[in-house]
Parts: sequence; C-alpha cells; structure tokens
Amino acid sequence: MSLSDAPDLPSILTSTIALARTAGALMLEGQRAILTASSGAVDEKKNAVDLVTEYDVRVEELVKGELRKQYPEYGFIGEESFAAGARPPLTDAPTFCVDPIDGTTNFVHAFPYACISLGLLYKRQPVLGVVYSPFLRRLYYATRGGGAWMVLTDTDERVQLPIGGARPLRGLNEALLGIEWGSDRSPAAMQAKCASFTRLAGDAAAGGRMAHGLRSLGSAALNYAMVAQGGLDMYWEIGCWPWDIAAGAIIAQEAGGFVAGGKNAPLDNVVGEDVLLGRKYIVLRAIADTETEQGIDAQKRIIKEFYETVEDYEPN
Amino acid sequence: MSLSDAPDLPSILTSTIALARTAGALMLEGQRAILTASSGAVDEKKNAVDLVTEYDVRVEELVKGELRKQYPEYGFIGEESFAAGARPPLTDAPTFCVDPIDGTTNFVHAFPYACISLGLLYKRQPVLGVVYSPFLRRLYYATRGGGAWMVLTDTDERVQLPIGGARPLRGLNEALLGIEWGSDRSPAAMQAKCASFTRLAGDAAAGGRMAHGLRSLGSAALNYAMVAQGGLDMYWEIGCWPWDIAAGAIIAQEAGGFVAGGKNAPLDNVVGEDVLLGRKYIVLRAIADTETEQGIDAQKRIIKEFYETVEDYEPN
Repeated sequence: MSLSDAPDLPSILTSTIALARTAGALMLEGQRAILTASSGAVDEKKNAVDLVTEYDVRVEELVKGELRKQYPEYGFIGEESFAAGARPPLTDAPTFCVDPIDGTTNFVHAFPYACISLGLLYKRQPVLGVVYSPFLRRLYYATRGGGAWMVLTDTDERVQLPIGGARPLRGLNEALLGIEWGSDRSPAAMQAKCASFTRLAGDAAAGGRMAHGLRSLGSAALNYAMVAQGGLDMYWEIGCWPWDIAAGAIIAQEAGGFVAGGKNAPLDNVVGEDVLLGRKYIVLRAIADTETEQGIDAQKRIIKEFYETVEDYEPN
Repeated sequence: MSLSDAPDLPSILTSTIALARTAGALMLEGQRAILTASSGAVDEKKNAVDLVTEYDVRVEELVKGELRKQYPEYGFIGEESFAAGARPPLTDAPTFCVDPIDGTTNFVHAFPYACISLGLLYKRQPVLGVVYSPFLRRLYYATRGGGAWMVLTDTDERVQLPIGGARPLRGLNEALLGIEWGSDRSPAAMQAKCASFTRLAGDAAAGGRMAHGLRSLGSAALNYAMVAQGGLDMYWEIGCWPWDIAAGAIIAQEAGGFVAGGKNAPLDNVVGEDVLLGRKYIVLRAIADTETEQGIDAQKRIIKEFYETVEDYEPN
C-alpha cells in the first residue's frame, strides 16, 4: 500500500472497534485492581498510584502496539508527540491520533466518564473516530460520510446520532452547556473561567445569558460524544490536545454537529491543522432548520454569540 | 395497620422498585415524544414544551396515585407540599418524599442524568430510597440496615455499594467533587458559587485546595447515588429540596457515606428534620480506616475542611 492511498475506512473501523473493546476490558481490569488495592481488601505489593501508572502504560502499549502491527505505514500522534511545546509532524498520510485513557482523573476516581479515544486523520483531518467507555457501556463511532452511531454494549442496540434527530436551538439562553475546569488552576485561568461561566449562566438582568445549565463530565472525548448524541447542546474547552478531540470531532460532525477552534478561527466546520493543534475547541450539536433560519446558520450564529460571551485565554 | 407500626421495608422496597420501573418507562416514552415533536419529524399538534409539562404531570400522577392506593395511611411530601415558603407538616408517621423527575432540565435536554427519586421517611428520617434512571439504565436502592445497591437494568447485574469497598481519602486536595450551578442565577448566588469553586479547585499558591476535579451532572439524587457508588468523593449544594435528596441520602448512608446539612449543622450523620428541610446539603463517600485515623473521623475532618473553604449563602 502506498501512503497516498486513501485509507479503507470500513475495514479500519472494524479493527479499531475491536481494539477499543480489548482496551476497554483492560481498563475495567485496571479499575478493579486499583479499587481493590486502595480499599486495602488484600495485602497488595503495589499501591493504587503504581497501579494507575501501570494500567495507563499497559493500555497505551496495547493500543499503539496493535495499531503499529496492523498499520505499520500509518503515523501516530499521542501524548508523547508533543515534546516541550513542539508541534507534531502532521502530514497528509493516514495518522492515528489516540488517547488510550481519556478522563484519567475520572478513571482514577472510578467516576464512569473515562474512555479510549481512537481517531484517524487523513489529509490532516479526522476521518474516523471510535470512543468507548466500558464504564458507561457505550461505544460511539463514525467514519467520514458514514454517519455517527452509539452502541449500547450490554445489548448491542445501535442508535444513529443525534438521538431523535436534529432539534431547533434559538440561542444560548436555551442551551445546556458542557464546560470544564481543566488542569490549569492558575489564578489567571481560574478568573477567566469563572468570569466566562458566570456570564453564560448568570441572569439576564446582570448581563448574563441565563443558559439552562452548565455540566462538567471531565472527558473531552465523551463531551463531544454527548454533543453528537444531542444530550449537550455545546461544549467548549481551552487546553485540550488533539488526541483528546480527534475521534470526538468526526463523531460530532457526522451527527450534524459543528466543530470549530478558538475565538478567531474560521467558522467553516473544518477540523484542519490549525483547529486540531490549536488547543481551543468548541462543538455545537446538529440544529434543525426552521422556517426562518437554516440549521448551519443557527450553528454559526450561536458560536459567535458564545465567543462574544466568554473570555479568551491562552492555555499553559 | 396503625400509624405507629414500623413500615415493612422489604415489602415497600419491592413495590417502590416496581413503581420506579413503571415510571421510568413513562419517562422514556416522554423523552421520545419530546424529541420527535421538537425535531419536527412528524406534524404534531403538541409542541415540545407542552409535552414536557404533560409527561412531568403524568409521571407525578402515576407515582402519587399508586403510592396513595397502596399506602393510603402514609404521608406524602413533594413539590406541592411547600406552598409559598411554608414548611411541610412533617410527622413521625411513614411519609413518602418523592421527586417524580429529578433533573428536569436534563430530561428536557435528553442529557441522561434524569431519574425518579422515591424516598420513605419514618420518624422524620429517610429509611428507604429508590433512585432510577432509565436513561443511564441504573437503579440504586437502599433500606435502613440493608446496605446500598446498584442494579444495571440491562443485565440485572447487582453490585453492593460502594463499588470495590471503602477507600482512604486524605483531604480535599485528593478529591473529585460534585458541585452544581443550580437555578439561582442572581449576582449574589453566582458570586458565592464562583468564589467557592475557585477556592476548591484553585492552586495552593493562591490559597486554593487544588481538588482533583469538579463535576456537575445536574441531578441531586444521582449525585448522592454517585457518591454512594464511590465515583464522586463529595457533593455539596445549596437550594435543593427534601424530595431531591431523601432517597439519595439513605442510599449514601447505607453505602458508608456521611450526610450532613449546612455549615453550622451538627456532624452526626443524622438526616433529621433540620437537615432534611434546611436546603443545604453535603454528602461524603465511605472512607476506609487507616492506621492513624478512623474513616468516620476522616469524614468529619474533610467536611469541616470543605466548609472552611466555601462561602455559605441563603437559598432563594
């Protein structure tokens, strides 16, 4: 196979779903081991912190090893690709963009929003995504042009996303928003977040948008999946990395969602190199056309309204 | 049966679980109808807002009707019990304390953290709780002295809580915290929340507690269930009502959790009248004993640490 060949997405989807399920089983085993060690129920040589590191590494090695064996010519972007602020060498070739455990804090705490996030880039854009949470027993996937799907893994029930189809959305004052506190807890970042969240949720008399609610789940990949599903109207975060969002972005797009970068990024629903590597991400669910406005125009209007509301800041 | 008879908890548990499942099926039907109506997929006479009201009322009537039929002598506390700031007439008699749909905003938005919350009070304390989310496919229940349990309803797998047993917790700097923005969006409430969340999550150099993370799910009953499960270490909210927390409180207590009221409430893990009606709630998961500290002492110490950190305010 030549690098210029387009990847065979249906075949890669089959193998990445199988790999996600295997990795998910290892995550379940890891969480059980961590809980057992930390409860002190058995006299373990390893403590819980060692086990977190161990399973994080084991899931990563499993996933990377399998992808390199099956797709030796493909590139790979993961956490280790960004050494000291360097941008990874993104090319047009098929490139996996993977977070073996997205939502590590959740994983450690046994909060069920942890998953494996497996994305494939081609010509510098996501074309395939698999997001699997063995704790939620939900597997999300999409390929470019193939729609977005959720599998309830206990029953193998398969649902096309968004669930129930696209609905209208008139503005932020009707929206349920996904936001995150993230890992940057410096006073500047905390101030920008608090000011933003207050403007989004605060009452209109005080200049707020009075959004219906703010929700925080702690996993970027699963936030994209929740927007794709239609359970969140929007999700915004500064400070994530490409492997957190590559799989989720194509799942959201294939569910009719609109994906963009930071405040000044173009509103064209293209997850190109600048959006992918820019560490500022926003995604809005599918919006139904109404008599007076096309869904895509509503999506652009609401993203603009959002960026007029929140404070921009630089990730550290 | 005389009102002074102690309620037969195993029998009431069986009937309230059956009722929760029936109500859950109606909630699923309601959400499908709401999604269909709002997507414009069919030419419905009713719009989505009408349907939300309709199903909210239908679930409530189903639950209240069935409880009154089966337990005509028992009291009932729900949203309509608080007329214009009055305290409900709490007595020693068995009294159901019920929220037919907890997480209404989530329900309307198809965000899966919505549930039915069925609590039973006896001698002014919760003695039985059933919390069922048909969207998450999880049913939580507990009776006084009978432990707390989670049922995965797709497979009927039953797990005792907390999952994996009690673990240690040294302080807020190790904790994953459930917090909520709630419905009070006045400048005073938003300021108190933002200040509190910043102190909980902010870095230690700036006087913060540097908690591992803050999560917001939007359902009080499911937050208690998540603490019972061990997925959240703590949950704090000002402004909820007794029917939001009665079922969750006994589930958390039976899972080894510690439940208390506002900043100045006694730390005795008793959900008495003052805690129940006080609209300030905090719950901490089971903590394992260590060589140097009993779990219950750690629970009290961490709740004190929490209340030294956050800003108290009055619910409206």
